[in-house]
Amino acid sequence: IKTKLSSKHVGLNLFFTHLFIYFALGSRYVSKTATKTVSEFEYDAPSMKTAVPGPKSQELLRQLGEIQNVGAIHFFCNYEESRGNYLVDVDGNRMLDVYTQISSIPIGYNHPALIKVMTNPNNVSAFVNRPALGILPPENFPEKLFESLLSIAPSGMNRVQTMACGSCSNENAFKSMFIWYRNKERGYASPSEQEVGTCMINQSPGCPDLSILSFMGAFHGRTMGCLATTHSKAIHKLDIPSFDWPIAPFPKLQYPLEEFVRENAQEEARCLEEVEDLIVKWRQKRKPVAGIVIEPIQAEGGDNHASPDFFIKLRNIARKHGCAFHVDEVQTGGGTTGKFWAHEHWGLDDPADIVSFSKKLLTGGYYHRDELQPDKPYRIFNTWMGDPSKNLFLSEVLNVIRRENLLEEVTRSGKALLQGLYSLQTQYPHILSRARGQGTFCAIDACSDATRDSIMLKARNKGLFMGSCGEKTIRFRPALVFKEYHVHQLLNILNDILAEHK
Amino acid sequence: IKTKLSSKHVGLNLFFTHLFIYFALGSRYVSKTATKTVSEFEYDAPSMKTAVPGPKSQELLRQLGEIQNVGAIHFFCNYEESRGNYLVDVDGNRMLDVYTQISSIPIGYNHPALIKVMTNPNNVSAFVNRPALGILPPENFPEKLFESLLSIAPSGMNRVQTMACGSCSNENAFKSMFIWYRNKERGYASPSEQEVGTCMINQSPGCPDLSILSFMGAFHGRTMGCLATTHSKAIHKLDIPSFDWPIAPFPKLQYPLEEFVRENAQEEARCLEEVEDLIVKWRQKRKPVAGIVIEPIQAEGGDNHASPDFFIKLRNIARKHGCAFHVDEVQTGGGTTGKFWAHEHWGLDDPADIVSFSKKLLTGGYYHRDELQPDKPYRIFNTWMGDPSKNLFLSEVLNVIRRENLLEEVTRSGKALLQGLYSLQTQYPHILSRARGQGTFCAIDACSDATRDSIMLKARNKGLFMGSCGEKTIRFRPALVFKEYHVHQLLNILNDILAEHK
Repeated sequence: IKTKLSSKHVGLNLFFTHLFIYFALGSRYVSKTATKTVSEFEYDAPSMKTAVPGPKSQELLRQLGEIQNVGAIHFFCNYEESRGNYLVDVDGNRMLDVYTQISSIPIGYNHPALIKVMTNPNNVSAFVNRPALGILPPENFPEKLFESLLSIAPSGMNRVQTMACGSCSNENAFKSMFIWYRNKERGYASPSEQEVGTCMINQSPGCPDLSILSFMGAFHGRTMGCLATTHSKAIHKLDIPSFDWPIAPFPKLQYPLEEFVRENAQEEARCLEEVEDLIVKWRQKRKPVAGIVIEPIQAEGGDNHASPDFFIKLRNIARKHGCAFHVDEVQTGGGTTGKFWAHEHWGLDDPADIVSFSKKLLTGGYYHRDELQPDKPYRIFNTWMGDPSKNLFLSEVLNVIRRENLLEEVTRSGKALLQGLYSLQTQYPHILSRARGQGTFCAIDACSDATRDSIMLKARNKGLFMGSCGEKTIRFRPALVFKEYHVHQLLNILNDILAEHK
Repeated sequence: IKTKLSSKHVGLNLFFTHLFIYFALGSRYVSKTATKTVSEFEYDAPSMKTAVPGPKSQELLRQLGEIQNVGAIHFFCNYEESRGNYLVDVDGNRMLDVYTQISSIPIGYNHPALIKVMTNPNNVSAFVNRPALGILPPENFPEKLFESLLSIAPSGMNRVQTMACGSCSNENAFKSMFIWYRNKERGYASPSEQEVGTCMINQSPGCPDLSILSFMGAFHGRTMGCLATTHSKAIHKLDIPSFDWPIAPFPKLQYPLEEFVRENAQEEARCLEEVEDLIVKWRQKRKPVAGIVIEPIQAEGGDNHASPDFFIKLRNIARKHGCAFHVDEVQTGGGTTGKFWAHEHWGLDDPADIVSFSKKLLTGGYYHRDELQPDKPYRIFNTWMGDPSKNLFLSEVLNVIRRENLLEEVTRSGKALLQGLYSLQTQYPHILSRARGQGTFCAIDACSDATRDSIMLKARNKGLFMGSCGEKTIRFRPALVFKEYHVHQLLNILNDILAEHK
């Protein structure tokens, strides 16, 4: 393996030569010198051989089409050859990847630290013997939880439950809130015989008519409990039965936030008022709100931000009405906003009752306050309850984040990225607007979905792979190893496309 | 790693010496000679050092208790030292494991073939770069699907969707059935504007009032869609909101099945009649049944069997009423009944519309007939859509099953196990009854839950680790490498306990 990786090293000399050619082109966006410590295992720039998807990808698409709906597939990848911020496809095209497998690759492709985890003989057993963690955990499980997940626990939370993915993390977080709410309602007494009997046939009071309040534009996953709180796109929800749960408006803010403080505060106040109205209304409908679930930044729904003040007030409304407060950090967690958790930007000691995660943390799961722990075993349970081999990778990711000060890097790269997006929207106001972001968790809107899609396809063919969200938004979700150098590469490509678009 | 494993080899000489001592005790249940080809990497017998849980497990339990509810934990494991059918705990106790991580370890602990997968440099990338399979699959993904999952596809099914676990497999199978049903209802036309609009706020017609028919005693998982079809234990369902979906009785048969053919046929006819009544009733309630979901053997609910004739008729009822037929093989799949899929015992060319799996297949997912494929991308979707590293292990598991004729072994061991259970219940009729099984997927009832639990704890302290299900059932879920030799070891331990229990 070592030899294989070494043969791909990009020497510093080669890098600077290339950089020189790059800047010599003159017409590029970059004005200041882009300095970069070249990571020894990374490539220096995109390199395109064919249009994307190329002929090999198209042939594989045909093969896979015999087994699955392949309509969402962009292209097939050569993950062995991918490095750091660069994703290589099967036709030999190398792209700067700022979508990172739907925001789930924390420190780039084939990071040497993660390869070491794989090749450490002490770790073999964790991969080949997947345990049922809820009944037979491995010896090092408490230690591994302390050194990984608990070392980054949100303020006020000492308990964590691992799960397999984002959806089952949120589903089980919802279940914890329902169990907590009902225990409170019955004064922590044992359930009645009627409750025990009716729950077996899906009827109340055993299966009570409780609800979760969510927000328009939210995305919390696609299993049926989560899906009832997801309201980002119709294609996710059409034809699937759901629950009659309250849906509040999420603030529609104007950007940049600093320039519209008063207007945005009014909009946020309107939404908070609606939240309280809905809680009262659903209590009257006898479907009381057991919990409120919200993303710190609505991602899939279009990168919609709200102010710390909004979240602080919402958290207080939850407390006032006896609802649990669940912050879904599946996409925002893991350092991409410049803090490990996006909710840290609110500055609260007691930010939530439950915080769920997945994606960049490689394992799913959720933290919770003590009260949210289920009172009995087997209430929150499944066969695997996560996967210890993912915890091993997470431990190493956290080491790399600390060692390489990646949160500072994210903050620095994020500033450069947002500044660049501001410049682009000033330069191309008829195409771009509403640049926004926190850390490298940035986004910009195109004038229409067709323009957005066209920009994205052109960028892909020039070696920049981006994601979309909302109706006409481009979202940037680079890995934490995305440096200022990469920012300028990205802006240059975008600038070229926009100049042609004029 | 190789050295580590080698040092644990159990020599043939040592094995036969031990076997001799074993049989020399005379009072043992075993009457015929137990022959065994000693797998070079396996231990020969249980070996107990402390009561279980021992002091180390208790200390770890205390530590983990600060983070999680640990009420379901039996003990902590030393997976490095576990081999084949033997699970070693942190206190050095070595137990014959016939529960295998809730039936999810296919070919025993630390199988050399699986260790090779880990240490093959070509596989490293699949572990460290987890892709978003729905948008950016790796180059070898179609090939790996063909050589693993499609090589064992149920009759009539050429399509497969991988998922992360059993629950999300079933959730997405349900969603596929809803989508299929609604497409049929609207004649495959585009959804109306009203449907698109209402689905965003959880209202019909966009989120239609469709249902899934399930059976009393069923277990299909714990996320909220699955949980609405799970009816095995109150602790799984209490306090969680649910759907008003029809629940049919599952046949309560008398065992051995061959001796009660007429009575059992009557009972099955009664249940099938009820199924048809419920389909009609729910259609009248305007919550039509889009699909029927059933396990070939109800596992968690108490190892309840039904005849091939029952399933054949049920499949016809589904077809007659235009409902999809979903066979949940999460626990029964993977070879444990002596065939790779339990539904193969029904002898149908067209056994189902959807077959879901997880556990022993290491990856979750479901097969489906062509018509059940979603018409558009992103309808069945999530970030990871499975995990290619699990497919690598599955490929190798299938190789081992074929090379070592494990399905034949399971049939042979299963016969010995069931015969042994019959003998035990004849010998101890006041304690045991209703021995039943297919392959090694066997079970027996105790006279009460207290007696069942007491037998299980005593067995654990003698080095036999079993699982429970239903109200007072012991379930046997050994790995596919469970040989006749191990059957006799199991029966000897059980016999000792029952003799003392007298």
